[in-house]
Amino acid sequence: MPYDAGNIFARILRGELPAVTIHEDADTLSFMDIMPSVEGHTLVITKEPAEDIFSLSSGGAGALIRATQRVARAVKKGLDCPGVMLIQLNGAAAGQSVPHIHFHVLPRHAGLDLKLHGRAMVEAEKLEPVAAKIRAALE
Amino acid sequence: MPYDAGNIFARILRGELPAVTIHEDADTLSFMDIMPSVEGHTLVITKEPAEDIFSLSSGGAGALIRATQRVARAVKKGLDCPGVMLIQLNGAAAGQSVPHIHFHVLPRHAGLDLKLHGRAMVEAEKLEPVAAKIRAALE
Repeated sequence: MPYDAGNIFARILRGELPAVTIHEDADTLSFMDIMPSVEGHTLVITKEPAEDIFSLSSGGAGALIRATQRVARAVKKGLDCPGVMLIQLNGAAAGQSVPHIHFHVLPRHAGLDLKLHGRAMVEAEKLEPVAAKIRAALE
Repeated sequence: MPYDAGNIFARILRGELPAVTIHEDADTLSFMDIMPSVEGHTLVITKEPAEDIFSLSSGGAGALIRATQRVARAVKKGLDCPGVMLIQLNGAAAGQSVPHIHFHVLPRHAGLDLKLHGRAMVEAEKLEPVAAKIRAALE
């Protein structure tokens, strides 16, 4: 399937939609999920226009995991959570909802239940204090 | 926490425990999960002795995602599944059960329910025919 340049992450990358940003480098952008499955739910995407892990370049995959690793460390430290779950979904059958490759970074506390996708939208001003903690912990 | 060299993945890497192998390179090993949450459940681990994404080196993370990407493509092609889910758990609070970093590669079909961890052990001879399909699809 050809990449759909109208997807919401492509629009965020072009600055057409807002995002509560955590980190940006030459190859990736990290920002808060606006329908979080848990507080601190962060997304890491490539700037490379790839739909999934199958079509992503090897270099893009490397950039994506390095940024995800950095964000995962910041989520753990900034939100003081004992666990972090990384999820990367490919294809609608796997639950992928936006056709632009992304890693979910999910802070985890023991016993906390998790829905893979939240169903309620959270306003940017509520995401911002959590984002600030993660940003401050970036190394 | 210091790395526990007695964990089962470290023992598989040392050849002390068997595994139904999919792929091996200088930095990684891929093999079938013996307690699969779904048929085709494959694990990708680093040879670098790291417990989680927090302590893994940047180079190790790159090697891990490249091998995972290759296995994900092979799982999709070899098992003819429309979706592939990648899960990487860090910390017991996130559901990590073996203290050696690993990616779960899970074939996904629409509507199929998923338990993150299977509870029943599957014998190697039953895993082998599925592994053979994935191996044959490696590119």
